[in-house]
Amino acid sequence: MDNLLYVSSRILKQINLLKTKKGRDNFNLFIAEGERLTKEIPKDIIEYIVVSENYDKTFYLKYNVKVYKASSSVFKKLSDTVNPQGILAVCRKNVYNINKVLNIHNPFFVLLENINDPGNLGTIIRTADAAYADAVFISKGSVDLFNGKTVRATMGSLFHLPIFTDIDLSYLINKLKEKNIKIYAAHLNGSKYIYDVDFKKSCSVLIGNEANGLSDFICDFTDELVKIPMPGKAESINASVAGGIFIYEVLRQRFLQEGYNWKG
Amino acid sequence: MDNLLYVSSRILKQINLLKTKKGRDNFNLFIAEGERLTKEIPKDIIEYIVVSENYDKTFYLKYNVKVYKASSSVFKKLSDTVNPQGILAVCRKNVYNINKVLNIHNPFFVLLENINDPGNLGTIIRTADAAYADAVFISKGSVDLFNGKTVRATMGSLFHLPIFTDIDLSYLINKLKEKNIKIYAAHLNGSKYIYDVDFKKSCSVLIGNEANGLSDFICDFTDELVKIPMPGKAESINASVAGGIFIYEVLRQRFLQEGYNWKG
Repeated sequence: MDNLLYVSSRILKQINLLKTKKGRDNFNLFIAEGERLTKEIPKDIIEYIVVSENYDKTFYLKYNVKVYKASSSVFKKLSDTVNPQGILAVCRKNVYNINKVLNIHNPFFVLLENINDPGNLGTIIRTADAAYADAVFISKGSVDLFNGKTVRATMGSLFHLPIFTDIDLSYLINKLKEKNIKIYAAHLNGSKYIYDVDFKKSCSVLIGNEANGLSDFICDFTDELVKIPMPGKAESINASVAGGIFIYEVLRQRFLQEGYNWKG
Repeated sequence: MDNLLYVSSRILKQINLLKTKKGRDNFNLFIAEGERLTKEIPKDIIEYIVVSENYDKTFYLKYNVKVYKASSSVFKKLSDTVNPQGILAVCRKNVYNINKVLNIHNPFFVLLENINDPGNLGTIIRTADAAYADAVFISKGSVDLFNGKTVRATMGSLFHLPIFTDIDLSYLINKLKEKNIKIYAAHLNGSKYIYDVDFKKSCSVLIGNEANGLSDFICDFTDELVKIPMPGKAESINASVAGGIFIYEVLRQRFLQEGYNWKG
């Protein structure tokens, strides 16, 4: 730690700019804050790491990336959290090849329209990762994937599977149809229950905005509106939870078909 | 609105006391804030309603309960939210008969141990309601059900099904065993997948703390530890989402058995 350079004013300025979407878009960089998250980052996309002077771990020293130190008070200002853990990494955005992803055999994609809340977006990505989805596509107009809160809510899952942002969903849906990949949209007025759909074939699930659901425009493009049964008195369920139930019904069908050694 | 009394200093003091667990326990009252939530409250448990002077709806006038008005600035101080909607209700806590609930035919109960986050607790209760669970039991040491944030996160579901708080889980589990109601605990090291359990029989699902999962102590009391498959790279999923997937697997099995006219 003693031989680390103090973070320069240029770096401090860059990190502050990376707290805005404009700054992240200009530099094509983003911040991943916290110990667990830093450990999840593929090493080749780390631009540099900043640690607080009183951070006592050393695992990052073997990453072969630039590391700067900052006084405790400076780190607190850089941090986006109430109780900073004392480490953050500035990373390059991963670039994935959409054509390659669209050619995956028997794929399962998650499509998101206008998700507003960073916590919900991060949580749904984490669920999609756990459930072995092949990719996530996020529409234009959704909250930024590289927002600090979203990044933290993914718990590292944004490094685990291809995620495409700023997607024109109507264009994507046409592409999916060309490849015979069905699009099932979660909708309170769905004509079928999720349990009556065959998700074992190539498919995509489409999840809409927390408050307003999917837009009518995009519903017209989908193959089928499907719903989660709610025999109780609640009129709706939380967006992240609904997304999780929908995504896991796909996993359940595929998991039971593939057998328990799947990915074993 | 003009003929409403202004809220007295006694009422103002009571509402402020109701923002603490101690105050809620002393008065046996709690606050439900917001228009949608107020509409969900069973009318017979409303103690009184307070509206902001500039609140322009009148639906509450037909409830036959005491209504006070407050100036906009006073209401803002009473409110627990950043953008107050201008209405809150003070309610008596509902009392449910535990023995009656334990005697429900072929029940499905949700048991929660040490849930810390009001948003998670509210969200899981909302999911349990949607999935037609018969009751929710919340352990001692969990966040208070009657915390303003929890109440709001339930979106009214706390008025829809019996919820028991401050529960000694080991005592409850013994009671459930006496009645042949199985207890399945969500656990990362479960010996079975949720899809391999028969939830159509009398059962309870037990969900643990967000960060630490279930305590070893309580796991020893349960019939079986069961897990959600995670074939992807994520090591865990969000607590509310995991709870939702677990609860909905029970619903799925019962729903498909009962047929689509269930509760029709």
